Amino acid sequence: MAEITIKDIAKQCGVGVSTVSRALNNHPDINQETRRKIMEVIEETGFIPNNSARNLKRTDAKCIAVLIKGITNPFFSNMIQIIEEETQRNKYALVLRHVESHEDEVDVALELEKEKRLRGIVFLGGRFNHSEEKLAKLNVPFIFSTIGVAGLDHAAKAEFSNIAVDDRLESRKMTEYLISLGHRNIAIIAERPENPIGRLRVEGYREAYQRQHMTVPEEMICYVQEEMNHYSMENGYVTVRKLLESEAGEKMTAIYASSDALAIGACRAVLEAGKRIPEDISVAGYDGIEIGEYYNPKLTTIKQPVEMMAKKTIGLLLDVIAGREEHQQIIFPAELVVRESTGPVTKLCGSD
Amino acid sequence: MAEITIKDIAKQCGVGVSTVSRALNNHPDINQETRRKIMEVIEETGFIPNNSARNLKRTDAKCIAVLIKGITNPFFSNMIQIIEEETQRNKYALVLRHVESHEDEVDVALELEKEKRLRGIVFLGGRFNHSEEKLAKLNVPFIFSTIGVAGLDHAAKAEFSNIAVDDRLESRKMTEYLISLGHRNIAIIAERPENPIGRLRVEGYREAYQRQHMTVPEEMICYVQEEMNHYSMENGYVTVRKLLESEAGEKMTAIYASSDALAIGACRAVLEAGKRIPEDISVAGYDGIEIGEYYNPKLTTIKQPVEMMAKKTIGLLLDVIAGREEHQQIIFPAELVVRESTGPVTKLCGSD
Repeated sequence: MAEITIKDIAKQCGVGVSTVSRALNNHPDINQETRRKIMEVIEETGFIPNNSARNLKRTDAKCIAVLIKGITNPFFSNMIQIIEEETQRNKYALVLRHVESHEDEVDVALELEKEKRLRGIVFLGGRFNHSEEKLAKLNVPFIFSTIGVAGLDHAAKAEFSNIAVDDRLESRKMTEYLISLGHRNIAIIAERPENPIGRLRVEGYREAYQRQHMTVPEEMICYVQEEMNHYSMENGYVTVRKLLESEAGEKMTAIYASSDALAIGACRAVLEAGKRIPEDISVAGYDGIEIGEYYNPKLTTIKQPVEMMAKKTIGLLLDVIAGREEHQQIIFPAELVVRESTGPVTKLCGSD
Repeated sequence: MAEITIKDIAKQCGVGVSTVSRALNNHPDINQETRRKIMEVIEETGFIPNNSARNLKRTDAKCIAVLIKGITNPFFSNMIQIIEEETQRNKYALVLRHVESHEDEVDVALELEKEKRLRGIVFLGGRFNHSEEKLAKLNVPFIFSTIGVAGLDHAAKAEFSNIAVDDRLESRKMTEYLISLGHRNIAIIAERPENPIGRLRVEGYREAYQRQHMTVPEEMICYVQEEMNHYSMENGYVTVRKLLESEAGEKMTAIYASSDALAIGACRAVLEAGKRIPEDISVAGYDGIEIGEYYNPKLTTIKQPVEMMAKKTIGLLLDVIAGREEHQQIIFPAELVVRESTGPVTKLCGSD
């Protein structure tokens, strides 16, 4: 590959090499019109302003993209940090791209593939409802992380990897724990069923009641506000404030929020309503983020093994890229962590 | 520039184009040894596995690197999100790189410059103690964000941009507010003076006492634990737990932590010691992150205008890259937000 040099740029612009260098370094002693012209030529030619082009040719191609749906969810901060560290240790650059809730992450990935010298893609969060045909369009290995793909058929699964917890099972575990404390009217704050993770967590909730031969309290199933970030503290706060004013809210003795961020917002709404946690209302979360240990009261939660999941996500992807491994689907066990925010039911079900 | 095509790769490997394609897509029906060989050739040649190479040539060069020191500080999550959105809107890719506390961020940037087709660099967090000579080595425009460079001489400043709040002034504001509530023994939890932000915040704390002609209570100046993340909740927790066992801890009536994450950890330690906030000990933070509004009690803090700062950071950098603007140093005003975690002093100074 013939590399464009700074001399070519200088020649094409009719200026000296030092002027191009000044333009690149944005030195104050360059005419801004000249600089703009030089930058345009640089843009057109794809010139790389760097001396070690040889070194660059080899390494520039290696990058991993991380596409995140729900970037405001603090759960992902920790994931991104670990993925970034591992990516770097393996001499890849990390390209970060958040995906708006209305965007299709595979479309975004296809667009990124055009633009970037990608070697692999990590999808963090979001919905998994992509057709096999669409996924087949992706040219580089990819992995869905923290997204369950349990519903998918086997043929498609061989084409990508997946790291997740068993959302249905873990959600059932939490609900069973709350039921074991005597709670019957447990409000669940979940994402709408269009979102597979939201759906699986609600399914686990239902299963817990069904396995005890109890009627599922349908009126206790609440969905987050659509118009704001789904996993934010603000969403938990607003949703529970509305809930507290409803008939279901008067009956409930426990709130199970499907993320810790939502649970923190829920706690705030409960406390502002003059109720005590857990004496009046128990509150539980899901994820196991740091704040849960430091909140007042400390938050009961389902702790996902975030460090192991993040390391496996990037490790497996790099192994697949290098041809050392085939694609895999791996389910990690999560842990019910009981802290201060949940306790035995103290009021009779249905009483005011 | 001559582009390497998939045909060139196939020819060089002595296989068909479809085999190369299968290798790239990591299809299960390819011999792993063959795949490894093909991937090696691809690696060597710098071949870009993509059909729209023309499109790629133009856009691949455009990327912005964000280097973060203190990536676990939740304050940066929000910054990164906004910077990423703006970067993307301007058709640049964002390369994320965390900088270990022992690493020099300019060294990391110089390394990244070699490897990536960078057009600009954002430095988030960290120390500013780089020589003019070293900064001059960077070939692309760069900006220090949320890092004060007040101590720097004018000549060097023309070479880069800076977005910050006035850490000394804002820190003085918080300390003056606590003094106005009657507190005299205010413990400050800060980064060590080697870190310019830590130093400026301690200077502001001292100034508040000095302006009131009061003696600075030197024994109340505490530093975070070196061996863990400096701005984590855990660090605040551990530091304040130690402090509470000391003589200074017995005298203090207020804690001013130099980040909200530290303040949350501090609250937890205070509560676990059986003390009430703010009745026994007031606790204040710095940053204005979301959790402060939802914590119990709600956290008094210095709120940095994070959205404006993030937008200006990336906007200014892109303007400089495009030659529309010169480098600038911009100081944003922050806001003292009084919430529930601080109140009037209720015990006499120096009493047990």
